Amino acid sequence: MIEFWYEFGSTYSYPAAMRVERLAQSAGVTVAWRPFLLGPLFHEQQGLNDSPFNAFPVKGDYMWRDLQRVCDLEGLPLVHPSQFPRNGLLAARVAICGLEDGWTPAFSRAVYQANFVDDQDISQAEVLAPLIASVGAAPDAVLAAAASDPVKSRLKAHVRQAQERGLFGAPSFVTADGELFWGNDRLEQALDWAVRHQTLEQA
Amino acid sequence: MIEFWYEFGSTYSYPAAMRVERLAQSAGVTVAWRPFLLGPLFHEQQGLNDSPFNAFPVKGDYMWRDLQRVCDLEGLPLVHPSQFPRNGLLAARVAICGLEDGWTPAFSRAVYQANFVDDQDISQAEVLAPLIASVGAAPDAVLAAAASDPVKSRLKAHVRQAQERGLFGAPSFVTADGELFWGNDRLEQALDWAVRHQTLEQA
Repeated sequence: MIEFWYEFGSTYSYPAAMRVERLAQSAGVTVAWRPFLLGPLFHEQQGLNDSPFNAFPVKGDYMWRDLQRVCDLEGLPLVHPSQFPRNGLLAARVAICGLEDGWTPAFSRAVYQANFVDDQDISQAEVLAPLIASVGAAPDAVLAAAASDPVKSRLKAHVRQAQERGLFGAPSFVTADGELFWGNDRLEQALDWAVRHQTLEQA
Repeated sequence: MIEFWYEFGSTYSYPAAMRVERLAQSAGVTVAWRPFLLGPLFHEQQGLNDSPFNAFPVKGDYMWRDLQRVCDLEGLPLVHPSQFPRNGLLAARVAICGLEDGWTPAFSRAVYQANFVDDQDISQAEVLAPLIASVGAAPDAVLAAAASDPVKSRLKAHVRQAQERGLFGAPSFVTADGELFWGNDRLEQALDWAVRHQTLEQA
């Protein structure tokens, strides 16, 4: 098992979300999808009120170029969103709602497609509704549940757990033995670690 | 050709310095060693007066763990330095002195070994003198040259060039066509890019 921690506004979470299930399946590792919010961590840990890619333009310029290269290598389309970062709060709450029924991965990929390919405002319920429908769930019921206190609390709990695990960015991967890996480019190493640990447990 | 931009206090520059020549040779790419200083960039771009790994402890905790994993995978020894970051100014000036005679790579690797394996204070001339001797150069003459205005100016020019190329961290790699790659974990991609560009030029 590996935890996949992601934020819908996060750029490198997009390629990670698109490839994590494929690579994990090849490795024989299951994926626990963990939507969370980066904003509270950026603020608490670094005093930031915006993405570091906006706060420090030289890092942002590099990131967009590097992300393009990463997507090119993966064969993933990329359209620079007209707004960055987009607020992923509502989408994260919706993603929480799908965990039990198993549609969170497909919904999450659809949200990344909307944000980073179709340039849609994923903070809006009317943008998310057709994405919810596309994975076979009922938009009205899900959006109502997403606005409920229990779901809000579960997302807050995810943010707390992220802090407890030492996360400071997204995507991040945490193995069953608590090993933390940060960044889309650490996915392979995280899976290798998970496999080696599983083998040791079984030995 | 690929430019290898590195700072002697930088942790991830250590594994990069140890493996860049081997990988570049396999790829048929030459390496231009570019010692520079990160401090001025961190201050100007992010308002920092210390390493971001010290300013933001959650990032520092992760970095040391990740660096250990990276070194383990590479078979490189690593000893957490008792002082971090160490001031790489004098070592960078010495490294500038070796560029024409070709001992900069070997000297630089020796400095990283001193900092990240032997836990020596690389800011001190008496620490650097035997490292200079170990690569066949004359310590007294080189240290005198390193304190001269022309060498100081050349290092300042490196820092300016780093800024002009859009660098914000180390190690960084810049290909002949100006493509920037940041991080030890981007070395392979930078070399791939350099090879593809060479091929296009010759075609």
